[in-house]
Amino acid sequence: MKVLTFLFFVIAIFSCKPQSEKGSSSSVAKTDTLPSWNEGVNKQAIISFVNKTTKEGTADFIPVTDRIACFDNDGTLWSEQPMYFQLAFAIDRVKAMAPKHPEWNTTQPFKALLEGDMKTVMAGGEKALMQIVMATHSGMTTGEFDQAVKEWINTATHPGTKKLYKEMVYQPMLELLDYLRANGYKTYIVSGGGIDFMRPWTQEVYGIPAEQVIGSSVKVKYEIVDGQPVLIKLPEINSIDDKEGKPVNIHQHIGKQPVFTGGNSDGDYAMLQWTSTGNGYPRFGMIVHHTDSVREYAYDRKSHIGNLEKGLDDAAKYNWMIVDMKTDWKKIYPFEK
Amino acid sequence: MKVLTFLFFVIAIFSCKPQSEKGSSSSVAKTDTLPSWNEGVNKQAIISFVNKTTKEGTADFIPVTDRIACFDNDGTLWSEQPMYFQLAFAIDRVKAMAPKHPEWNTTQPFKALLEGDMKTVMAGGEKALMQIVMATHSGMTTGEFDQAVKEWINTATHPGTKKLYKEMVYQPMLELLDYLRANGYKTYIVSGGGIDFMRPWTQEVYGIPAEQVIGSSVKVKYEIVDGQPVLIKLPEINSIDDKEGKPVNIHQHIGKQPVFTGGNSDGDYAMLQWTSTGNGYPRFGMIVHHTDSVREYAYDRKSHIGNLEKGLDDAAKYNWMIVDMKTDWKKIYPFEK
Repeated sequence: MKVLTFLFFVIAIFSCKPQSEKGSSSSVAKTDTLPSWNEGVNKQAIISFVNKTTKEGTADFIPVTDRIACFDNDGTLWSEQPMYFQLAFAIDRVKAMAPKHPEWNTTQPFKALLEGDMKTVMAGGEKALMQIVMATHSGMTTGEFDQAVKEWINTATHPGTKKLYKEMVYQPMLELLDYLRANGYKTYIVSGGGIDFMRPWTQEVYGIPAEQVIGSSVKVKYEIVDGQPVLIKLPEINSIDDKEGKPVNIHQHIGKQPVFTGGNSDGDYAMLQWTSTGNGYPRFGMIVHHTDSVREYAYDRKSHIGNLEKGLDDAAKYNWMIVDMKTDWKKIYPFEK
Repeated sequence: MKVLTFLFFVIAIFSCKPQSEKGSSSSVAKTDTLPSWNEGVNKQAIISFVNKTTKEGTADFIPVTDRIACFDNDGTLWSEQPMYFQLAFAIDRVKAMAPKHPEWNTTQPFKALLEGDMKTVMAGGEKALMQIVMATHSGMTTGEFDQAVKEWINTATHPGTKKLYKEMVYQPMLELLDYLRANGYKTYIVSGGGIDFMRPWTQEVYGIPAEQVIGSSVKVKYEIVDGQPVLIKLPEINSIDDKEGKPVNIHQHIGKQPVFTGGNSDGDYAMLQWTSTGNGYPRFGMIVHHTDSVREYAYDRKSHIGNLEKGLDDAAKYNWMIVDMKTDWKKIYPFEK
């Protein structure tokens, strides 16, 4: 199923590279704009775009109501290697839920997963992954799922850095989000990841409220259980927020064409294209290029996670800024010294 | 099809009652809270709820991020008689589009509609209405539809009042929206009406931006036409934002349970129930009861438009405030002297 290709496609599960903590230390004063961005054309391009679009009375001015900025999440705001973090969550959930599912001890892919045999799980392909996702992302109320995500995000750690997953967000992108908001931009997440998986923690981690998070979703059903209304998550896809699904969902959720968009893979191509071909206002498109094999990970054209080919090929055509993580970013993660 | 029952079900098409302009004039100073609301328990209940939920350090305090207020549109923020205004738009669109559709001169329900024979149109039931809706709400780009709505909303007038439809909004509700926003509440529309029909004008008319409008929608498709990306509206329902669909869509769009909800019909029952049974915070549910046959329209239990039965029956159980338009509102429309 195509659904899974983007949602949780996993490669190189065991190729986890330890993240170095040697990132260049920042001695820049806090009042500086984008302090974790090295000086250069890219940093300057961002600042110049924000300056010109917020200067009232000029041709490039964008009214506050139309300052819509959209960002992919996996690989754009936080890391996505060696597997999408949401898949790590799903795997952990299978383990946590196993006591109530004795049938999993004899049913694949759950049996293999519980035995730590990831090779057999992966051999099951997308069908197996879909079974894992649906078993862990449906069949409960939205409140119960929310609670499970909150517990996980506050305790689960990355195999490479040993840091909480929620600490593996990109410091320069946090600064960019803050900078845009300080200039009247409304910041959104538009991710292939699950909408209900992201919403419980995006406010705390990115300063982005639940209502500004767009993602893939399952259908939910309103039901009265023991006299109490609840929303039940159903094992049925509602929307896949990837590729052409991104501009579609931006329309359905926001109803405006973004003027600023950031992504990192070809899953973001349509959203970037939709942004950069809009009429009337200046537009800004940027692609986070994973070029730092020491401090983070280096991958693009040949990677199954965060595959980036069309985006690089057409960057000049659409005037997309390619962020070179290795040279543009002073530090990658907030926890770096 | 059930779809149409709520979307555009029309009765009493010709029972249009002229709206009186004799509404009691308001001499209250502008600094007053809710000046078009008469003094009484209802006005006091609103003010007291807002006061207690915005006082930091108290048990009833609601943080700004959770101050979510949702309002139905038809019959709650603007009038809905003698037919849903969006149906008037659809009828006008058929007439405007007719020159490019010669086949409509010989095909029902278009032939009857173009001849002004609404009885035959209505005899076609929901199937005919669905044909009219789909012919006028799909098959074009989102930009083209947006333009058509803007032209219509700025020119089309109501058969009874002869005022623009967009002027037939409820002054006391405009004040309530302003009052809530001034107190940190984020105001949303959650309507059975079309999301793309409302978004072009809600900012101007209600101060509610497109991204805070939730409604029924058709599917859209991202396509490149002559090298330019566009979103095409498809003749296929994406979501029906009525009854149980309202809490479902509130979840998918906002991801938070509202603390304040206003409606006027049983189409809002589930949304009100979902609001009023939430945990942790004080909750406010209100129903606009159409009781004023002189200044607006009087209808409830027996009406096909804005049918209200369960809401009245269970108002006490859920502590919903019933707004008596006749006695609670000093004026109905902004244009009243």
